[in-house]
Amino acid sequence: MKSHRIAMLGTGLIADFYTKTLHGQRSRDAVSVVYSRTQERGDAFARRWGIARATTSIDEAIRHPEVDVVVVALPNHLHEETVAAAARAGKAVLCTKPLGRTAAEARRMIDEVERAGVFAGYLEDLCYTPKTLKSIESVRAGAVGDVLWVRSREAHPGPHSAWFWDEKQAGGGCIVDLGCHCIEIIRNFVGKGNRPVEVLCWKDTLVHPITAEDNAIALIRFESGAMGQFEVSWTFRGGMDLRDEVAGTRGTIWLNHFLRTGFEMFTAGAADGYIAEKAETASGWLFPVGDEVAELGYVDMFTDMFDAMEAGRAPRETFRDGYIVNAVMDACFRSVESHGWAKVELEWTGGLAPRIAPTPELLDGQIVVKRELLPDGRAKLILKDPATGVCSDRVM
Amino acid sequence: MKSHRIAMLGTGLIADFYTKTLHGQRSRDAVSVVYSRTQERGDAFARRWGIARATTSIDEAIRHPEVDVVVVALPNHLHEETVAAAARAGKAVLCTKPLGRTAAEARRMIDEVERAGVFAGYLEDLCYTPKTLKSIESVRAGAVGDVLWVRSREAHPGPHSAWFWDEKQAGGGCIVDLGCHCIEIIRNFVGKGNRPVEVLCWKDTLVHPITAEDNAIALIRFESGAMGQFEVSWTFRGGMDLRDEVAGTRGTIWLNHFLRTGFEMFTAGAADGYIAEKAETASGWLFPVGDEVAELGYVDMFTDMFDAMEAGRAPRETFRDGYIVNAVMDACFRSVESHGWAKVELEWTGGLAPRIAPTPELLDGQIVVKRELLPDGRAKLILKDPATGVCSDRVM
Amino acid sequence: MKSHRIAMLGTGLIADFYTKTLHGQRSRDAVSVVYSRTQERGDAFARRWGIARATTSIDEAIRHPEVDVVVVALPNHLHEETVAAAARAGKAVLCTKPLGRTAAEARRMIDEVERAGVFAGYLEDLCYTPKTLKSIESVRAGAVGDVLWVRSREAHPGPHSAWFWDEKQAGGGCIVDLGCHCIEIIRNFVGKGNRPVEVLCWKDTLVHPITAEDNAIALIRFESGAMGQFEVSWTFRGGMDLRDEVAGTRGTIWLNHFLRTGFEMFTAGAADGYIAEKAETASGWLFPVGDEVAELGYVDMFTDMFDAMEAGRAPRETFRDGYIVNAVMDACFRSVESHGWAKVELEWTGGLAPRIAPTPELLDGQIVVKRELLPDGRAKLILKDPATGVCSDRVM
Amino acid sequence: MKSHRIAMLGTGLIADFYTKTLHGQRSRDAVSVVYSRTQERGDAFARRWGIARATTSIDEAIRHPEVDVVVVALPNHLHEETVAAAARAGKAVLCTKPLGRTAAEARRMIDEVERAGVFAGYLEDLCYTPKTLKSIESVRAGAVGDVLWVRSREAHPGPHSAWFWDEKQAGGGCIVDLGCHCIEIIRNFVGKGNRPVEVLCWKDTLVHPITAEDNAIALIRFESGAMGQFEVSWTFRGGMDLRDEVAGTRGTIWLNHFLRTGFEMFTAGAADGYIAEKAETASGWLFPVGDEVAELGYVDMFTDMFDAMEAGRAPRETFRDGYIVNAVMDACFRSVESHGWAKVELEWTGGLAPRIAPTPELLDGQIVVKRELLPDGRAKLILKDPATGVCSDRVM
Repeated sequence: MKSHRIAMLGTGLIADFYTKTLHGQRSRDAVSVVYSRTQERGDAFARRWGIARATTSIDEAIRHPEVDVVVVALPNHLHEETVAAAARAGKAVLCTKPLGRTAAEARRMIDEVERAGVFAGYLEDLCYTPKTLKSIESVRAGAVGDVLWVRSREAHPGPHSAWFWDEKQAGGGCIVDLGCHCIEIIRNFVGKGNRPVEVLCWKDTLVHPITAEDNAIALIRFESGAMGQFEVSWTFRGGMDLRDEVAGTRGTIWLNHFLRTGFEMFTAGAADGYIAEKAETASGWLFPVGDEVAELGYVDMFTDMFDAMEAGRAPRETFRDGYIVNAVMDACFRSVESHGWAKVELEWTGGLAPRIAPTPELLDGQIVVKRELLPDGRAKLILKDPATGVCSDRVM
Repeated sequence: MKSHRIAMLGTGLIADFYTKTLHGQRSRDAVSVVYSRTQERGDAFARRWGIARATTSIDEAIRHPEVDVVVVALPNHLHEETVAAAARAGKAVLCTKPLGRTAAEARRMIDEVERAGVFAGYLEDLCYTPKTLKSIESVRAGAVGDVLWVRSREAHPGPHSAWFWDEKQAGGGCIVDLGCHCIEIIRNFVGKGNRPVEVLCWKDTLVHPITAEDNAIALIRFESGAMGQFEVSWTFRGGMDLRDEVAGTRGTIWLNHFLRTGFEMFTAGAADGYIAEKAETASGWLFPVGDEVAELGYVDMFTDMFDAMEAGRAPRETFRDGYIVNAVMDACFRSVESHGWAKVELEWTGGLAPRIAPTPELLDGQIVVKRELLPDGRAKLILKDPATGVCSDRVM
Repeated sequence: MKSHRIAMLGTGLIADFYTKTLHGQRSRDAVSVVYSRTQERGDAFARRWGIARATTSIDEAIRHPEVDVVVVALPNHLHEETVAAAARAGKAVLCTKPLGRTAAEARRMIDEVERAGVFAGYLEDLCYTPKTLKSIESVRAGAVGDVLWVRSREAHPGPHSAWFWDEKQAGGGCIVDLGCHCIEIIRNFVGKGNRPVEVLCWKDTLVHPITAEDNAIALIRFESGAMGQFEVSWTFRGGMDLRDEVAGTRGTIWLNHFLRTGFEMFTAGAADGYIAEKAETASGWLFPVGDEVAELGYVDMFTDMFDAMEAGRAPRETFRDGYIVNAVMDACFRSVESHGWAKVELEWTGGLAPRIAPTPELLDGQIVVKRELLPDGRAKLILKDPATGVCSDRVM
Repeated sequence: MKSHRIAMLGTGLIADFYTKTLHGQRSRDAVSVVYSRTQERGDAFARRWGIARATTSIDEAIRHPEVDVVVVALPNHLHEETVAAAARAGKAVLCTKPLGRTAAEARRMIDEVERAGVFAGYLEDLCYTPKTLKSIESVRAGAVGDVLWVRSREAHPGPHSAWFWDEKQAGGGCIVDLGCHCIEIIRNFVGKGNRPVEVLCWKDTLVHPITAEDNAIALIRFESGAMGQFEVSWTFRGGMDLRDEVAGTRGTIWLNHFLRTGFEMFTAGAADGYIAEKAETASGWLFPVGDEVAELGYVDMFTDMFDAMEAGRAPRETFRDGYIVNAVMDACFRSVESHGWAKVELEWTGGLAPRIAPTPELLDGQIVVKRELLPDGRAKLILKDPATGVCSDRVM
């Protein structure tokens, strides 16, 4: 029974979620050392989670002899150098989302970990929620047929830490913060071997006094013809809206991860407890989540990472996935600039996905366009003459 | 107490819905004559609804001396000539959606009714659903602040009549059939005085053996900066998905018109009744709608039309609205062709809408980017230095 | 085309709902005279709804020569004498719920209208909601098989007018105010020919400083073996909770009439509009209802009443139904007193309902207790030996 | 870092759920030996879960030298003797629900584990679901004020194993199988120090060809005045209905654990995977659950059990809780027999709970019965004269 000793780089909200998870159900692994820019925040974090050491040196945290796994939970502009340092120190490295600010950064990070031969995992929690994992399994088992369209939406009133709001450190606004989740969720549903071909993106800064976008929508066309659609916002009112929808030739999936999960509470306001991440109000109708770290995928994500490490296999979410996500986001920004569709520029190693092409049913030499059940039990067919293209209907 | 005598042109599903409504709650008005291409269908329709006369001549139906209102419920390619005939006969004319196949057709229809001086109404039922009407009222009362984004989605497994599937008669596929609803719903929420500026559209034929699109998504940028988004599909599985979402600076609205309205039924399949329009299955979990003609807006739509006629005012939905919808759809098709954003070409008479621009709050000379309530009751602020643009956080 | 002239007795919330409906969609009928205890309230009501006359004399309102229909929207203790006066004046009489304060009162009201030979209707709006009507139709068509259990729940923070809180005028607390709805909803689902045999009731005054009950639950056993269950409360927090659930041998129905109907709104609070009856808050997540008078059944209720009047048939909800509801409520109060089940004392004219008794399936001489589908597609059966009663399982 | 070696007694569905959980997230503990009545089933179970030993001797499993914890997952009639054997062997014992078939059995089991001084835990998973745990925390923090009413509902088409259907082995029907969950959920919400005083129960055998009840409803009156209500059924159609509702003086909680948790799927039926426990159909609209063992409470339950064992404290759910649940169920059966309320006969050690009694607000010497916000922002008060008891309303 193996256990791991972890260096946690960062002390923001995400580091809290990660540490809560690591010290929780699996219960074998522990954070040995935490890095923060300031000793004060590091000490507070260490006390909060019962961690032995807090340091203001990234290098010291990484190189600590007890540590075998480095978790990068730092602002985006620090990912590349930190991953490189961890890889060079021979430590397994798990990096939070997005992998880089650009595909170029992500590409170099892949090189570093490959060169060092260390285990690398992409901490994309929302691809590991229990609902998402079971849905992906259903899609692979054919429950919805060929996937035609995936919508992934993440919207809330804006992030908690100052650096997110600074375009240089973050690499962008809500596209980079939230769109990265959506893109990878979409890829999991349309199939990771389905190449993202081109992208159309709209972004705008509608509410907050910042230069980065606070609202964006993008369409991603995949090789099979499937369409991905993401909607991200830092101006949503009402809590955190996390929904995914999948439409296929034979079925539909609707996932709601946060505001409508079968947990509804009205309160006139006496309590003073924490309701849920990004809830806006403390009274009225509230929609808490039972076990946030489980529902948001953190538990299954770290289980997969450690299981993969121990089994010598790749995790479900790799640095290559992070790189593809970055390439799609790069295309989003180019699309905005060019005011049109932009190609996804990418070293693709994922193979070919055939075009969605259902075989039409024939009836008496006519193409069956649609078959519908009438209230009286009869079937109504729309038929198309293959020669003339003229449509007619027939009830039978 | 006035009552109206109606010529119903057409005997398809929509004519059934219209007649059911006209003969229902308001109960003062009645269809006097129905037109169908074949006497057989006309007679069956007349029997079904207790109508005195069925004819195979549009002209005869329009000119019937008892008739004061003509309802055009015909395939799209017949709208222009039929509206013209009704106008020239001096009859009030109510035309189903979309008004034309193109903005040019719609423009000529406006000319005809204006020249004749007859009452004209655009039968856009989904802008009249009770939920939509009350939502629009709430939006106007400021409940959601400035509208930033509207999503309107209409998806089902495809229409019932053969002509819809024929691009020439219909003028397109699901964009023309369903997108017209979505565009006008979006306009009602962003404000009818808010000019649609440009459009981005993706469409594809993914499933059905037809030339028209069976899936499409479009983004519509309005003058205020607000973004409209529609998703339409003839390949949806699971019934009819009719949802609208509105995001504003101060609030959010989610409407679900069909599959999740507080009416849920599981049946092992003994019954043989009609469940709801476009339900796909007759057993398992079903989601019927209580009163379909009311929930889909037909009741309030005709009430508005007749009230407007009697009061000598314009109805909520006019031919001009239909024309703008056509102009947006024209831009959708041009966007697909040009593979990028396309301007909406339009004679605009709706005035100017100012850019959404919230005034940022200041604190000690810093711009407040975000204000958040912490679980312990304190406020956490993200502040931006107006000189340097650097962001920082402060808890107070 | 007939139209009716109505005397509206009462000016409370229910009189507003009734008048809004009567002057709304059907649009043929109108209130000619309104009665209120004070001229001031009567005049205000008349102005609000465009009614020609307001009087403080019930008798004058009833006997007004233009009036052919009397609507009794008065406190419960006035129903008996007012119905009697209307009947003796030869006017059709529609009485709000509950019919009487006791079955004895209700019985005498039946005698009065029968003796006078006037039309009488019981204004039980919640049995006319579009969802309820369609559900009842589905149940009759066999969609859920034999009905086993019906739960009807009505709960809110308490009524609007003072007289409700006075046990003598009202005849009780939330049982009489809300339970009467639930009982009749339950009867519609289990079948009106299914005799309510005995009742078990708990009631308590838990929150409000009153003598009447503010919370109650009752079980009603019907002749078929079906069980009705109602839950009523004047202390519910969060708005108005109106839900019905039906369980049958072949299916399930869940109705939610108010707080979860596909209309969801979050607002930070700028608007100052009326959201929905009995909403508790004006900000946060709100759940408005599209068209309240339609969704709560008022529209279909009055349509049925007038259609019945014109067709010379009984309406769906008669004084006899009101009498049975009173008899069940009487049994509720006796059950509380006797601390056990109480028989429903009732002149029953509704016939016999056979005991629910599915015929068990046999397999190889064994009784099939249950049949279940395994994930691998095989069936798992629980079998019972008819001789020994011993159960075993078999997979096939 | 401690780990445990477990003897799993039983190989039914519940043993699968337990073992899946024990071998899952916590990942430190493992089943060392499994007992089954037949070697064949034991071997299959051992292979399925990678367990070293399968035996047909309960005693051998318990006494195995590696085993420190015995999990009793056997039919109800075997609980008492097996718990006694485990206690006498000095092993920690975790027993599935219900603890006994009667309170007398449960009482003797408490004596056995107390006499032996071994750790004992009551495996009541549904009190450990993440939603339930967070709700209980909110209730204790005052979010809903004083708890007035709790509804707990568990209904499905019937259990999977033959012994459940045999009244002698099980001790009853759905009351014993499902009611035990509901009673303990209710106790967690009203407070474990709140004595259940008396019970009213209805039960019937409506559908299945068995002697035990397949439907039951009970009311449980607690010392504080709070009312618990459970509804259990083995005849529900549509899957597994697991819902809890809590009403308090200041708030409301609604939990839905199974059919409406934000995971909705429509499938035309191509897939052949396992959807969720007790789903009835493999096509149409389905409502799967993300991570069943987590959502149903198994994960948090075993974590609490092992944490308690290691910390030397009692778990959240003890044998004493199981005993109280049995005492309430005993009262249910007595209530059915006596056709009225039945006292809960119980050795109570839980202290006293005061009567719910809000202090009424006074205004100008009048008692405020209700305070309501009008649409125009004014408050409407119902006032009661403390001397006369007469109610009046005032708008201010």
